[in-house]
Amino acid sequence: MTSPPAPIPAAPIPVGLGLVLHQRMAELYPICRSITGDGVRQTLQLIGREIPLDLKSVQSGTEAFDWTINDEWNVTDAYIATPDGRRLIDFQAHNLHLVSYSTPVRARMTLDELRPHLHTLPDHPDWIPYRTTYYARTWGFCLTHAQLEALGPGPFDVVIDTTIRPGELSYGELVIPGDSPDEVIVSAHVCHPSLANDNLSGIVVATELAKSLLALDRRRYTYRFLFAPGTIGSIVWLSQNPDVWPRIRHGLVLTGLGGGGRLVYKQTRHGSRLIDRIAGHLVGRREGEIRAYSPYGYDERQFNSVGFDLPVGRLSRTPHGEYPEYHTSADNLDFVTAEELTESYATVWQIIQVLERDQRYRNLSPYGEPQLGKRGLYPKTGGQAASDAVMAMLWTLAYSDGEHSTLDIAEISGLDFAAIDEAAGKLAEAQLLDPV
Amino acid sequence: MTSPPAPIPAAPIPVGLGLVLHQRMAELYPICRSITGDGVRQTLQLIGREIPLDLKSVQSGTEAFDWTINDEWNVTDAYIATPDGRRLIDFQAHNLHLVSYSTPVRARMTLDELRPHLHTLPDHPDWIPYRTTYYARTWGFCLTHAQLEALGPGPFDVVIDTTIRPGELSYGELVIPGDSPDEVIVSAHVCHPSLANDNLSGIVVATELAKSLLALDRRRYTYRFLFAPGTIGSIVWLSQNPDVWPRIRHGLVLTGLGGGGRLVYKQTRHGSRLIDRIAGHLVGRREGEIRAYSPYGYDERQFNSVGFDLPVGRLSRTPHGEYPEYHTSADNLDFVTAEELTESYATVWQIIQVLERDQRYRNLSPYGEPQLGKRGLYPKTGGQAASDAVMAMLWTLAYSDGEHSTLDIAEISGLDFAAIDEAAGKLAEAQLLDPV
Amino acid sequence: MTSPPAPIPAAPIPVGLGLVLHQRMAELYPICRSITGDGVRQTLQLIGREIPLDLKSVQSGTEAFDWTINDEWNVTDAYIATPDGRRLIDFQAHNLHLVSYSTPVRARMTLDELRPHLHTLPDHPDWIPYRTTYYARTWGFCLTHAQLEALGPGPFDVVIDTTIRPGELSYGELVIPGDSPDEVIVSAHVCHPSLANDNLSGIVVATELAKSLLALDRRRYTYRFLFAPGTIGSIVWLSQNPDVWPRIRHGLVLTGLGGGGRLVYKQTRHGSRLIDRIAGHLVGRREGEIRAYSPYGYDERQFNSVGFDLPVGRLSRTPHGEYPEYHTSADNLDFVTAEELTESYATVWQIIQVLERDQRYRNLSPYGEPQLGKRGLYPKTGGQAASDAVMAMLWTLAYSDGEHSTLDIAEISGLDFAAIDEAAGKLAEAQLLDPV
Repeated sequence: MTSPPAPIPAAPIPVGLGLVLHQRMAELYPICRSITGDGVRQTLQLIGREIPLDLKSVQSGTEAFDWTINDEWNVTDAYIATPDGRRLIDFQAHNLHLVSYSTPVRARMTLDELRPHLHTLPDHPDWIPYRTTYYARTWGFCLTHAQLEALGPGPFDVVIDTTIRPGELSYGELVIPGDSPDEVIVSAHVCHPSLANDNLSGIVVATELAKSLLALDRRRYTYRFLFAPGTIGSIVWLSQNPDVWPRIRHGLVLTGLGGGGRLVYKQTRHGSRLIDRIAGHLVGRREGEIRAYSPYGYDERQFNSVGFDLPVGRLSRTPHGEYPEYHTSADNLDFVTAEELTESYATVWQIIQVLERDQRYRNLSPYGEPQLGKRGLYPKTGGQAASDAVMAMLWTLAYSDGEHSTLDIAEISGLDFAAIDEAAGKLAEAQLLDPV
Repeated sequence: MTSPPAPIPAAPIPVGLGLVLHQRMAELYPICRSITGDGVRQTLQLIGREIPLDLKSVQSGTEAFDWTINDEWNVTDAYIATPDGRRLIDFQAHNLHLVSYSTPVRARMTLDELRPHLHTLPDHPDWIPYRTTYYARTWGFCLTHAQLEALGPGPFDVVIDTTIRPGELSYGELVIPGDSPDEVIVSAHVCHPSLANDNLSGIVVATELAKSLLALDRRRYTYRFLFAPGTIGSIVWLSQNPDVWPRIRHGLVLTGLGGGGRLVYKQTRHGSRLIDRIAGHLVGRREGEIRAYSPYGYDERQFNSVGFDLPVGRLSRTPHGEYPEYHTSADNLDFVTAEELTESYATVWQIIQVLERDQRYRNLSPYGEPQLGKRGLYPKTGGQAASDAVMAMLWTLAYSDGEHSTLDIAEISGLDFAAIDEAAGKLAEAQLLDPV
Repeated sequence: MTSPPAPIPAAPIPVGLGLVLHQRMAELYPICRSITGDGVRQTLQLIGREIPLDLKSVQSGTEAFDWTINDEWNVTDAYIATPDGRRLIDFQAHNLHLVSYSTPVRARMTLDELRPHLHTLPDHPDWIPYRTTYYARTWGFCLTHAQLEALGPGPFDVVIDTTIRPGELSYGELVIPGDSPDEVIVSAHVCHPSLANDNLSGIVVATELAKSLLALDRRRYTYRFLFAPGTIGSIVWLSQNPDVWPRIRHGLVLTGLGGGGRLVYKQTRHGSRLIDRIAGHLVGRREGEIRAYSPYGYDERQFNSVGFDLPVGRLSRTPHGEYPEYHTSADNLDFVTAEELTESYATVWQIIQVLERDQRYRNLSPYGEPQLGKRGLYPKTGGQAASDAVMAMLWTLAYSDGEHSTLDIAEISGLDFAAIDEAAGKLAEAQLLDPV
């Protein structure tokens, strides 16, 4: 830790926050996002209404380590229609209908000709899949299997009115200064189109977290929020900010924070960083799951890659690929509830609280147990069991040897960090503890 | 380890020991003990009939770290009576009736006036609770809930004939010298009134242990026994003996050694001291339970406090607060059996045996397995399974590399320490092992 | 590791290998082996038809550490017959009938006189036990309990036509050179008479392994095969080859590789050597069992003894003493199947593959994930789950930090070593990895 505990409030979660977050998701939902294009910029502008986001852009063609920024993709329209103009599959109806980065097409085709370009989910005949072709210049439509079966032999008018041209990759960044230049990075990807859990949920939780941190008088750490397209976005940011790498002490990727299922924390590549211990403690106490690092997932794989080796974990609920709605039209606004968003946000906020307040103390009355009774911290009548508050004080005194932090003591004692933190506060006030 | 294994006998537990210990408890049971006063001195005198205990006393008002020794408390009489002199609640009948350290009272009171001073256990209407008010100057009576319900509206004559005056805190100490100045401290508290398991059981087991150690020709370690009032007694002893602190290499608090339930060993604060390994091995093999340190309990919390950091564990059966009879009149002489006392004592004695005999050896025939057959240590006809005695020798040879002690080998092999110790003896006799 | 991965083929197990191995066992089965004698030499000659084995011999009476080589034992004939010459128990019918190292006898005896020299298995009345008397000069017969019960009161002509005379202890050795002088020792005992699982199975698997290694163009390690009588054989070899000890980096004792039951790997004395990790990984993935070292068993106990401390593990199926057929006539050619031999051999071969190919690499594109797509290593359409081959590449890139080897990565990822090894090969070819 790098400075004294910050005066972060214990329970800053406003009533009705989940509904507010869900409402923000609803605003963002219709926008057609991809790794580049107007949709990303529009999304960043909406986030910018909540927090003072810096909008950054990098020219396509720019190299970033092993990658090159793609040309920018934008869509005007796309559909499959009958020759008489009746739209059967229509991008205007649902932006998942168009494979992301599809090249322009204007053709009349039979079903046989069109079929190799159509993607469906036979097991979920009413859902539209989500597909991309970022780096292979081709095109396609995603549709429900029911739509496919109703198509008939054709011919069809196939129109894709898109552009893939030199342009920009856009992302948003916000740095909230703290007492220390050491940074906590919080990242959410902004490249998915009309998909609610993956990842509007991450965007709105990250936005709200930034808002709450901005509202604090001070912060122990400097916080950096990154709203960028997945993979290429974090790689570009990393390539442009080598000076920041060594300052990143902790990090979280936020994604898939609704959609049912318990909380899942994915550890950093080492599995033993402070963020792993903090999230492990808190997610474990919520009966969530702790998973070891794996190299598949979201932007944590870039931050954790061998060259950067940054301690960035990931918080989700049921992760990508483990729920059927993943990357389909069924990941919609109904799929993510206000309750889930609230619990996810509360967990993220608790993680921040431990980051801000974890502290080693030295017991100032280390020879035997101090007499708590004469300080009004112990019940007057003896012979009965100790209260939770007394136990938290006894644990804190017993392990405040200058080596164990309040997080350590919470882990050893099996008590909540908040209980130990509160006990430490009372003991410090009674001159029994001193911060190290 | 600090000297060669001592010639401690393998099974010194006399037949009928449990009954003898129970009889000693019966003598001690009626005495009204508290953290000071005549009852403590009377108790120490009875212990002194078995072992040559030094009786120590320290003036009240003396400071001991964060504590100050209380004035001495003594009771002449205490009762609640009808106006015509019939005693309804009588300290003479059971010393738990009076809250320990009650101030003097002589008053006529209605039940309404008296009620705030009465303690009962509604869930166990025939048991008297045990309550103390060491550091808050007030008074009270403990009674069965049935007695409370039969009291009627009063008025009552309430008499407490006690004194709280400058005096002494008393404790008993016995040092049994060994080959090494390194010490093993064994501590039992002597401040509880008519409560059998907590802690007459600890007192009689500790006393018997001292007696058995005194009967040995030599001892590897110096043993120090402490019979002192809980909390303040050990704090006072520690405050007066700073020179002894660094010599304490191992320690045990003995308490609650009957009362049903399996053996429970509570580890030192570090959980990794030799006493933890020894007690863990032995209690584990008796299907007892090993618990991590916690800062609530008995005098182990003083010894283990940050400033002393002494490796003192605790042996109990079902610990304080986990059985309903705890701190009530139901913790009486029927609650603790001779069988339980015998097993508890046997376990303590085994712990001492390992402390005294744990030894590293060096295999003197380390290149391949020595030919045990030519030394008469191996069966003549081959092709059959090895006996337990042969296996103990093979384990001992295999790990006697100068690094592993007999305790290590017992743990690795899953065999009893006694079996490895015996095998090591045979192998040393056959010139195959040498103590390191 | 000591040199680059060797070009060892991934799946060299020829169809029908199990049957071939079983056939070789059938040839070896009838021979009467002991720790010395013609049977051992005959066995080594048969092994020598498959691989260029060096036959070594050491004079009886030679000292080897704590042991002295026994006089050589040979059998011409042995039987218990009726006075009219009808053989009731006949060494010619089954060599287990004679206790190994029985002294010569020619006597007429009643059953009462003979009885102390007879060994049976009452619980398995149709099986002949296997017994030895290597170091006590006596004699005996092993017979089925049914035979014993049919013997009648006698008298019997008891004839044992054996010699115990100065001679030789024989063993076979084969060194297959590798790029490095560091050695892998593979040992199988050759002292058991007509017992199939213990240990003809080990002999034929070890022989086949040597054959396969000889067929390779190069090997990372030098391999040393030892076919020697149990205990005394390995002790003699060790005593005569002190210069080789420090070169032994890994080792395996092969025994009991059929006979049902799952694979069992017994760890080295330390439990943490590379051979332990390799065998643990591979045997674990076959749902085999990993056992900690114990000082009872086969020649691993000599290699692991304190003075040598060599990292030699043992591969078996259900180990000695844990199946009823162990050391009886029921451990015959029917007891070991071609399927079991094949799986055992495949496991041994996999262990060798990891020894030969385990390799640390450095990720040459460590800043973020390299763009696999532009190298044809990633699927073109995004949005779907990663394939196993892609996952193996991602794991390999994520942990190829110069510290983790392919075995480490297999363990961390939970994937087969072979999959990681293959991924590493593809990535190295694509210039994304470099061996460290």
